[in-house]
Amino acid sequence: MNCEILCVGTELLLGDIINTNAAFLSKELAALGINVFRQTTVGDNAERLKKCLKDALDNNDMVITSGGLGPTYDDLTKETAAALFGTDLVLDEASLTHIEHFFSKTGRKLTDSIKKQAYLPKGAQALPNDCGTAPGIFLEKNGKVLIMLPGPPKELETMFLAYAVPKLSGLTGRTSVSHTLHIFGIGESTAENMLKKMMTEMTNPTVAPYAKTGQVEVRVTAFADSTEQAEDMTRPVINEIIRIIGREYVYGMDIGGLQEALVRRLEKAGLKIATAESLTGGMISKMITEVSGASGVIECGVCSYSNRIKHEILGVSEETLESYTEYSPQTAEEMAEGVRKLSGADIGISTTGIAGPGGGTDEKPVGLVYVGVSSRMGTFSKKLDLSRGLKNERELIRELASLHALSLALKETEKIMAKAKKVKKIIFLI
Amino acid sequence: MNCEILCVGTELLLGDIINTNAAFLSKELAALGINVFRQTTVGDNAERLKKCLKDALDNNDMVITSGGLGPTYDDLTKETAAALFGTDLVLDEASLTHIEHFFSKTGRKLTDSIKKQAYLPKGAQALPNDCGTAPGIFLEKNGKVLIMLPGPPKELETMFLAYAVPKLSGLTGRTSVSHTLHIFGIGESTAENMLKKMMTEMTNPTVAPYAKTGQVEVRVTAFADSTEQAEDMTRPVINEIIRIIGREYVYGMDIGGLQEALVRRLEKAGLKIATAESLTGGMISKMITEVSGASGVIECGVCSYSNRIKHEILGVSEETLESYTEYSPQTAEEMAEGVRKLSGADIGISTTGIAGPGGGTDEKPVGLVYVGVSSRMGTFSKKLDLSRGLKNERELIRELASLHALSLALKETEKIMAKAKKVKKIIFLI
Repeated sequence: MNCEILCVGTELLLGDIINTNAAFLSKELAALGINVFRQTTVGDNAERLKKCLKDALDNNDMVITSGGLGPTYDDLTKETAAALFGTDLVLDEASLTHIEHFFSKTGRKLTDSIKKQAYLPKGAQALPNDCGTAPGIFLEKNGKVLIMLPGPPKELETMFLAYAVPKLSGLTGRTSVSHTLHIFGIGESTAENMLKKMMTEMTNPTVAPYAKTGQVEVRVTAFADSTEQAEDMTRPVINEIIRIIGREYVYGMDIGGLQEALVRRLEKAGLKIATAESLTGGMISKMITEVSGASGVIECGVCSYSNRIKHEILGVSEETLESYTEYSPQTAEEMAEGVRKLSGADIGISTTGIAGPGGGTDEKPVGLVYVGVSSRMGTFSKKLDLSRGLKNERELIRELASLHALSLALKETEKIMAKAKKVKKIIFLI
Repeated sequence: MNCEILCVGTELLLGDIINTNAAFLSKELAALGINVFRQTTVGDNAERLKKCLKDALDNNDMVITSGGLGPTYDDLTKETAAALFGTDLVLDEASLTHIEHFFSKTGRKLTDSIKKQAYLPKGAQALPNDCGTAPGIFLEKNGKVLIMLPGPPKELETMFLAYAVPKLSGLTGRTSVSHTLHIFGIGESTAENMLKKMMTEMTNPTVAPYAKTGQVEVRVTAFADSTEQAEDMTRPVINEIIRIIGREYVYGMDIGGLQEALVRRLEKAGLKIATAESLTGGMISKMITEVSGASGVIECGVCSYSNRIKHEILGVSEETLESYTEYSPQTAEEMAEGVRKLSGADIGISTTGIAGPGGGTDEKPVGLVYVGVSSRMGTFSKKLDLSRGLKNERELIRELASLHALSLALKETEKIMAKAKKVKKIIFLI
């Protein structure tokens, strides 16, 4: 079943609001196994709306519109649809009662233009609006399905899930399950090349990669008659992807990034972490504390932006700072060890380096970063070159440095767990 | 001049990402006086893309595409456009050099699929990509203009403003100047209502508001025959907006947010700041150190997520934590004072509160936040209720708390400067 999404509203064409309705509907339709081949946005203009709606109905089994159901003169979607189908608009008593009730509750006067919202194309069913006044419309005619929804996202989303989805499930008779694998440490194009065969050859489940900053996500979606069946279909595909990409790069499934993988793993291990950040300036502790429940695994982070603070609070020795500078493996290691001791945490992680745009030299260029890790297993550091040679890469370098630090902390947690025999095999995926 | 925006990407049709490019381009085109009558989104499918592109070119003077310029097999926009125009793709040496430079710096191997990005339709001009590898394309042929931009929003936005806008200004025969005023402390709809008359009645300069999280930006754009003339036209409008909104809410012009306003102001004042963060977990120090040159004004930040660290490192008294809890004005003030003393900074700022989803009570609900400020002028705190009653508002609460803290730090800097008679009148706008 193919569908086009047609969003109506001049405010969208002026860029005054971002179109979240198209993404919401697309995602929900994909989950129902309905293909969306095009999204179109058109303004509150009768002629252009008519052309777009006709074109969408001609080329698809189903069209879903958003917007243009309100009370004002430029709300034209219903009128245009009725004209296209050659039907009249007739009063829907239930919708009128709902509107009257809504207005009496808010003490406002019911005008004729407000009442206009209760008129539907003949033969259509109203979709109740639990968050506003304008009802939605479900119309099956001439072998086509037309669903018209209100524009405000809260009204549209609530109405679609409560009243449109049951009608659509009835039409398709299929359900879907999706899982997302999270990958760090290999580039997008490398991952795509590795998965190319699966991506192009498989149709159910489907395999699709998504590039994030420094990361790749791969989504596996299966369609079947039942959720259990769809779930069963995804499993061998997920295992095959992990085998192809390599277990060491796949750090989790269906989670909110490296920070959530780390927090959940530290929770399981009963370990605490502390951060000492120079060039990332607090980004790592900010990311860890993004995760609900982080207070169980992190008590302390220090942003030691100056050498004085690195020395006075974290205890990095003056000799180290003088002999090797702050951009050195020695400083990174002393920072990680320092914050671990200061806080009493099990694992200390640190970052130091040059985010730019200034401060780089031939010997120590912008993008040179050291990440330090300290735990009962020992202390070490990793050197990274994170510059991509871009004009404005300060934030990118900081973000990549944070991701590398989170990834190293995750691996350190696993090492400690493996040593403590808390796990037989290093696996945290599911 | 009429334009269609054609966004290319299966991820958009699956609803995996929200289309911000269409809104960005629409707004920028409106500011240039170019009409957008339709936005279309299509997937990475050669046949359907060709049909949409042909339709868009047939019905408009100009088409702007986003997405599909990357290295993978399903990046098809350029190839489709070249086929439609009946031209070949030819190698653009400058683009290849840029890509080679990018890859040699990251030590990655340059594959043929990567090189494919440097090929442009014959007769086209490359638009440099300052944030990535794939160049954009500007093509004038058969009386039509086709601009192809990369999909990632940062790449698209940077490229469009730096390289496409000048060409479009050339086409329209006029030049434009834009200035953006940054507003914090009043809501978007309040600001819009205050500026409604200007927004709807003025045509040159135009006045357009943009809502950001917790902030509003108002952009003033003037068109004229020369830059100087356009510049002169914006000035009285900018002054009028500041008068209407109120000087205390307009914190800067053409800058990178509250963090940049704060860093530049601290630099001028010769003052240093330190942060003590509980619920924001490092977000404030991360934001301050985002600004290039931050090392001159911040040496130290402490993420004191647990009460133990609040006491041991920042010196918040155990009595305070026991009697008033960590969610109290007393704790916020002792944190701010503590980090100021610990670091030797001129200003200490702190945050403590409940970001949720757990941890809230009737008395101290999710969204309750205290921001503390300490300087030679004294120590105080501000109570905030930042909950919007949304399902998933943890990050929103943390971000709003950080913005309030930055704003209070900015005002404290101004107070100190005014006292020291470093400034006659508190003004930091230009």
